Amino acid sequence: MADNELILLDLWDSPFAMRVRIALDEKGIPFKSKEQDLEEKSPLLLQMNPIHKQVPVLIHNGKPISESLIVVQYIDEVWYNRSPLLPSDPYQRASMRFWADYVDKKVYNTGKKIICGIGEEVEIAKHELIAILKTLEGELGENHFFAGHTFGYVDVSLIPFYSWFYLYEKLGKFSIELECPKLVNWAKRCMEKECVSKNLPDELKVHDHIVELKNTGKYK
Amino acid sequence: MADNELILLDLWDSPFAMRVRIALDEKGIPFKSKEQDLEEKSPLLLQMNPIHKQVPVLIHNGKPISESLIVVQYIDEVWYNRSPLLPSDPYQRASMRFWADYVDKKVYNTGKKIICGIGEEVEIAKHELIAILKTLEGELGENHFFAGHTFGYVDVSLIPFYSWFYLYEKLGKFSIELECPKLVNWAKRCMEKECVSKNLPDELKVHDHIVELKNTGKYK
Repeated sequence: MADNELILLDLWDSPFAMRVRIALDEKGIPFKSKEQDLEEKSPLLLQMNPIHKQVPVLIHNGKPISESLIVVQYIDEVWYNRSPLLPSDPYQRASMRFWADYVDKKVYNTGKKIICGIGEEVEIAKHELIAILKTLEGELGENHFFAGHTFGYVDVSLIPFYSWFYLYEKLGKFSIELECPKLVNWAKRCMEKECVSKNLPDELKVHDHIVELKNTGKYK
Repeated sequence: MADNELILLDLWDSPFAMRVRIALDEKGIPFKSKEQDLEEKSPLLLQMNPIHKQVPVLIHNGKPISESLIVVQYIDEVWYNRSPLLPSDPYQRASMRFWADYVDKKVYNTGKKIICGIGEEVEIAKHELIAILKTLEGELGENHFFAGHTFGYVDVSLIPFYSWFYLYEKLGKFSIELECPKLVNWAKRCMEKECVSKNLPDELKVHDHIVELKNTGKYK
């Protein structure tokens, strides 16, 4: 293992860190998680990700990789013969990258507006999030997973947010299951996979923690 | 050519569209450019990119690919044996993806604040852009191109903005060459490549066009 040491600078409720844990576990690659404190960033985090100073950072034999979707692609390229996450066809790869990028650009930031918004802003953000999730539900169609039969890159990018759905629902006063029943069924299918269920934290814990951070001005 | 028809939904002064043209020309792949009017979006654009409704869209044998960095990766994967843009080593690939993503997240939006900002906002955005370009200059180091000796993915992602530098400089009242001389030397090296020089519009034309759009409330 000396020439394949993997350390993950991690955070239990970060959807971005969850992506990396899910990808590693799906491929059965052992790693050591080092939980980070974003209030007081460790010298290791600042050294390994001086540009964004954020989790997750995967450190492979001393060399850091950051930005979660880039890390997931790295994992898929290094261990390409174990449960591939991206298909081999360039067009399908481009399509999967497009949807993971869509998740990346839309879900977290819109959810944040539900969490931090005031009055009318919350209502607008809620409708925005529903529209985004309905778009994703449309793309999923009748598929088992986003790429078809097998769990892959878009699933990895989106499923962590399932552990934040309860938070969005409570603060936005709505039901994602009522709005997007097929997407929630997809999430439940993903949860049948051990790599997902073991890496998604309890939704109540996520809710309580983020609400606490918000109330103390630490959720930004 | 019937089974390899390439149409680019294009825009002459879009740095994102330029990326795709540069990548195709670097590989010597013929394509047909269809200039788009973003004021009055064509049915073809709306059909081919219903999610973002933006250029560029590369239509390969009738199938659309959008989001410029995803398109460039697609081109690199389909025509992988002609002037590869991404290196083959997974760590180097991740590193190149990181920096292209950095360019994507930072340069255009910060430049926009220089263009659209009022008073103090312009000054703040100017210092932000200088810091971003200095970070990129640091990453370039003494290299000829970002990946070393050969023109590649990060160069493709950043060089289009060279045609917008004059615009930023005029509106922000500063000189990028004075702040980042090595980065400007890199840009000049890129301009010696035909795939770059033929695809970057005249900086005065870019300036006049964007200022006109801004003054008529059409640059958003």
